[in-house]
Amino acid sequence: VSGSRDTGEHMHAWARDLWAIPRSLTGDGVRETLKYLQRLVPEIECVEVPTGTRVLDWEIPDEWEIRGAWIEDDQGRRVVDWADNNLHVVGYSTGVDSVMSRDELEPHLHSLHDDLDAIPYVTSYYKRTWGFCLSHRVREALGAGPFRVHIDAEHRPGSLTYGHCLIEGETDREVLLSSYICHPGMANNELSGPVVLAAIGQWLRTCRRRRYSYRLVWVPETIGAIAYVAEHGNHLKEHVDAGWVLTCIGDERAYSMVPSRLGDTVADRITRDVLASRPNATEYSFLDRGSDERQWCAPGVDLPIASIMRSKYHTYPEYHTSRDDLTLVTPLGLAGGLEVALECIQRLERETRWRSAVDCEPQLGRRGMYPTTSYRGSADAVRDLMNVLAYCDGSHDLNGLARRTGLTPDIVADIISKLEDAQLVEPVPN
Amino acid sequence: VSGSRDTGEHMHAWARDLWAIPRSLTGDGVRETLKYLQRLVPEIECVEVPTGTRVLDWEIPDEWEIRGAWIEDDQGRRVVDWADNNLHVVGYSTGVDSVMSRDELEPHLHSLHDDLDAIPYVTSYYKRTWGFCLSHRVREALGAGPFRVHIDAEHRPGSLTYGHCLIEGETDREVLLSSYICHPGMANNELSGPVVLAAIGQWLRTCRRRRYSYRLVWVPETIGAIAYVAEHGNHLKEHVDAGWVLTCIGDERAYSMVPSRLGDTVADRITRDVLASRPNATEYSFLDRGSDERQWCAPGVDLPIASIMRSKYHTYPEYHTSRDDLTLVTPLGLAGGLEVALECIQRLERETRWRSAVDCEPQLGRRGMYPTTSYRGSADAVRDLMNVLAYCDGSHDLNGLARRTGLTPDIVADIISKLEDAQLVEPVPN
Amino acid sequence: VSGSRDTGEHMHAWARDLWAIPRSLTGDGVRETLKYLQRLVPEIECVEVPTGTRVLDWEIPDEWEIRGAWIEDDQGRRVVDWADNNLHVVGYSTGVDSVMSRDELEPHLHSLHDDLDAIPYVTSYYKRTWGFCLSHRVREALGAGPFRVHIDAEHRPGSLTYGHCLIEGETDREVLLSSYICHPGMANNELSGPVVLAAIGQWLRTCRRRRYSYRLVWVPETIGAIAYVAEHGNHLKEHVDAGWVLTCIGDERAYSMVPSRLGDTVADRITRDVLASRPNATEYSFLDRGSDERQWCAPGVDLPIASIMRSKYHTYPEYHTSRDDLTLVTPLGLAGGLEVALECIQRLERETRWRSAVDCEPQLGRRGMYPTTSYRGSADAVRDLMNVLAYCDGSHDLNGLARRTGLTPDIVADIISKLEDAQLVEPVPN
Repeated sequence: VSGSRDTGEHMHAWARDLWAIPRSLTGDGVRETLKYLQRLVPEIECVEVPTGTRVLDWEIPDEWEIRGAWIEDDQGRRVVDWADNNLHVVGYSTGVDSVMSRDELEPHLHSLHDDLDAIPYVTSYYKRTWGFCLSHRVREALGAGPFRVHIDAEHRPGSLTYGHCLIEGETDREVLLSSYICHPGMANNELSGPVVLAAIGQWLRTCRRRRYSYRLVWVPETIGAIAYVAEHGNHLKEHVDAGWVLTCIGDERAYSMVPSRLGDTVADRITRDVLASRPNATEYSFLDRGSDERQWCAPGVDLPIASIMRSKYHTYPEYHTSRDDLTLVTPLGLAGGLEVALECIQRLERETRWRSAVDCEPQLGRRGMYPTTSYRGSADAVRDLMNVLAYCDGSHDLNGLARRTGLTPDIVADIISKLEDAQLVEPVPN
Repeated sequence: VSGSRDTGEHMHAWARDLWAIPRSLTGDGVRETLKYLQRLVPEIECVEVPTGTRVLDWEIPDEWEIRGAWIEDDQGRRVVDWADNNLHVVGYSTGVDSVMSRDELEPHLHSLHDDLDAIPYVTSYYKRTWGFCLSHRVREALGAGPFRVHIDAEHRPGSLTYGHCLIEGETDREVLLSSYICHPGMANNELSGPVVLAAIGQWLRTCRRRRYSYRLVWVPETIGAIAYVAEHGNHLKEHVDAGWVLTCIGDERAYSMVPSRLGDTVADRITRDVLASRPNATEYSFLDRGSDERQWCAPGVDLPIASIMRSKYHTYPEYHTSRDDLTLVTPLGLAGGLEVALECIQRLERETRWRSAVDCEPQLGRRGMYPTTSYRGSADAVRDLMNVLAYCDGSHDLNGLARRTGLTPDIVADIISKLEDAQLVEPVPN
Repeated sequence: VSGSRDTGEHMHAWARDLWAIPRSLTGDGVRETLKYLQRLVPEIECVEVPTGTRVLDWEIPDEWEIRGAWIEDDQGRRVVDWADNNLHVVGYSTGVDSVMSRDELEPHLHSLHDDLDAIPYVTSYYKRTWGFCLSHRVREALGAGPFRVHIDAEHRPGSLTYGHCLIEGETDREVLLSSYICHPGMANNELSGPVVLAAIGQWLRTCRRRRYSYRLVWVPETIGAIAYVAEHGNHLKEHVDAGWVLTCIGDERAYSMVPSRLGDTVADRITRDVLASRPNATEYSFLDRGSDERQWCAPGVDLPIASIMRSKYHTYPEYHTSRDDLTLVTPLGLAGGLEVALECIQRLERETRWRSAVDCEPQLGRRGMYPTTSYRGSADAVRDLMNVLAYCDGSHDLNGLARRTGLTPDIVADIISKLEDAQLVEPVPN
């Protein structure tokens, strides 16, 4: 697995499989989605948090089940049907089965005046109401009614479901990677994050050595993350050294990031570095945040976590509409998103700091690392190696050594590898 | 009381009342001045430090009493008379009653060659001598003499007098405000500081809530401040969080400040901010200091205290002459000086740092602080509030929050007020 | 002793005396050199480290003794003779006495293609081989042979020899000064360092007061410094506050420096300051280092030591050839090098930080340091003194005080001297 075209196709296929599942904050749509992801990453464990559980300032709401929903016009035609597109119903709508006039119906309709053919995405999690989302063109053609309005939905005590796993590395220092699984039929926001995260899980399972342990988390946005902090906050604060929120990461437009609240953690620095080589990449302000970094980076939680995106939520025209579909998200787009995430992870893994294993300079000669005859100019031959060694003082990582010595990171990596083989440097323990 | 025109008139009236009192380093002029101020701020306590008391590197000098002084020419005319202007006698002059020639008199005369009608202000506190100050024009018209020279003055053991009070607030953290009361008939330097300080005292007595306790200090300059440090230094070092020296604060020219020796204390920052909105304000260097901040900010004392001035001592043409009078100092000038000082105090009082009272984001919905229906754009509606909350991490005050969020301090203050009402933030204890 | 022309002549005479001694990494040449230096600085103690001693990552090699070496051509002419120039033999050559063809001889010859008349300097300390160095012109004229090749040299267990002394000052804080004594017939690299170091030793012995103790070290380069760290490293880490490596310090070209690895130690700052007043001075990077600062500044050793040079090793055309002789190194060149080193030392000695000995301002009047009559302008007269005093807070040295007050270091030094006489300031204990 890597950020290749092939992996892009796999991820796109997963997204197509997940497309029709009616996800929401809670319920079977979330469970079905997690079950699919478990087949990709068997380590995923699903956790149920019962309705009514107090999670920090919040309370786990009732579970929402929807079985069908439609509007029939006076001709008996289903002019809007949830079976066609699961955006058609306002998330967490109450059940309704009633005949009403256009005027009565009107306050329950949501459409976009500036994009006549798109269906908007609307939820009402914390105030009980019902509603339909539809394209403005369909709305305008509805006629006067009467309409039969039917939503077969139920709110009842249940639970909120999230999935997570810890893929253990050599140390118990953790990297937290998260995305969210509460959005119905939209692709960039948000099937792209969950499938890229699954691909990362597959890659981590097979890659040879990892310094860090990786905590992968798929939660319903906001309350899921809050429930996660409520349950695991102390552990996270003690163990998480870096992390990324993956969201809106599957379209083909330019990359972007939101730094952590603290703004200069290792994740921020690495993400900045990685995006610097991508054309037109944007760094947004933490003020522009909008996903689960709101919880991971809340004051007092303050995990060192950045967000990686392509077109950021709120900024692209298809956002939170039916236009955010699997033509906007492409295999190439997903592959690029995965590639950036993996590059960040690899940069983090490589961010070892070395220290010299000997006091003063080592005798390179008896290790066959020094020209045996000294003449004018010969000192230059080992200069790079000695310069790298001179800064192996426990405080420089690969990039730091490159900056200090004026060498490229690749040359430094070669030299470090020689120095490690000769047992002249050793990584600083975490 | 506030920095209004009316208060300006009050302060100017006080200054006129105090004008003729013959102040010096010690003596009844200081006591009478403090007694007047006590009527304005009853909390003021007068303290006597006996002559001969060792105060740090200094010793309290003899008290100086003057009852009259004049020069009579050979026609019996009093060509110079202390009764006309108390600047006419060199401060701390010894008594003299003698007839002498112009040549004998000459070394005891002080006038200004570059301002023919102004009387200079001269003192000789620590070397016993006598002298008269007069306008150069009068000096040039003196004639050859002989002159009868009379100073009815006395040096005798007594005490140095200062006044101070502590107007208590909610905490025992203190703000030190000081001015000096050793200058005779000059208005900007220095009746302006003492009367503005008295007006601050009146304002503090009546204002509803104060976080800080306010220590108001009226001392003879230099040795009075040194005596104050000798007596109260350890208490000040432990309790004073900020403070201001008020001097030359009653003319109508541009404002200025001298920062503390450390240069970046809260008082320095606030004064800079407040003066930034005044036209042509000047920040002098600590190297240009010249009043009691010399003691408050001495190495090892290092109180976090800045000076607030309008035309700084040493820099304005009327300085230390009879031209520094109550036409230079005006009600408007005093009102402006008070206004700046009160603004600094209010900024300091408002300099609360808040922290979030909940972990992660609060649920705004059940508090009626969040739109119940989520649609494209609705997140923007609470964004400002959430951004302010995100930086309520215990390290940002109002201005810091404004800087971080890009909002104005007023908007931040509104939001903080809402968040406090909802018990979502709490001030960090001092 | 000072950096004068006369001292320059002395140093040059010492260098001429030392010229012909066949120095190498070990052996009697080193001992004889140290014995000569002991006559100049009697405190020098010679230390022998036996062959086979493990010193950090290294092992003291066999001692090398050479008694003679030459190449005879087929006419019996000694075309190359070590007696003429001790560069003619590769350092640490094995003994050989053999007749061979030109082809057999050729791999053992070293000459410079780009400087036909210069003899290069070549060593092979850690791989046993033999060789001759000669000018390219002589090499080209050698003919076909056969040649009789004779090196009367021996490797046998013995010891490595170094010299050092501690010239004690008022405190046990140390300044480490080092140069190296393993180079045969070359003048700038490296007779200049050892003789300038000897002149510093003479100067230190006679100068009146020194705050620091001075550790002067003459070692064979690299392994000698490593042996020194092995033996004295912990002491050095605890006691050395600053230091300099002196090398290539006797030619007349521009000065240069290599900073310590840490880059901003007091030695670095002082050297920078001192060189700033010399025309065309160069600060090289620590990456360009090449002498014993490689050991003194190794990670984990990290002594605060800079190098002072004129033409830096590796950078001047005569480097490591017979052209680096006592016409390149001159009395004037040596005197300049000594002057810079002494200026650095004196700057370090003067780098006292003062603190006020009184709380608040002192009473200057009773000390006769203040004008007794106060009039407009008189305050300016003592302003400089008071400003200097205001920053005597224990954290500013002479240069710091100058920076703070806007005065020149010389004026500050005058003022400090007055303040010390009046017991108003005192140096902060080390």
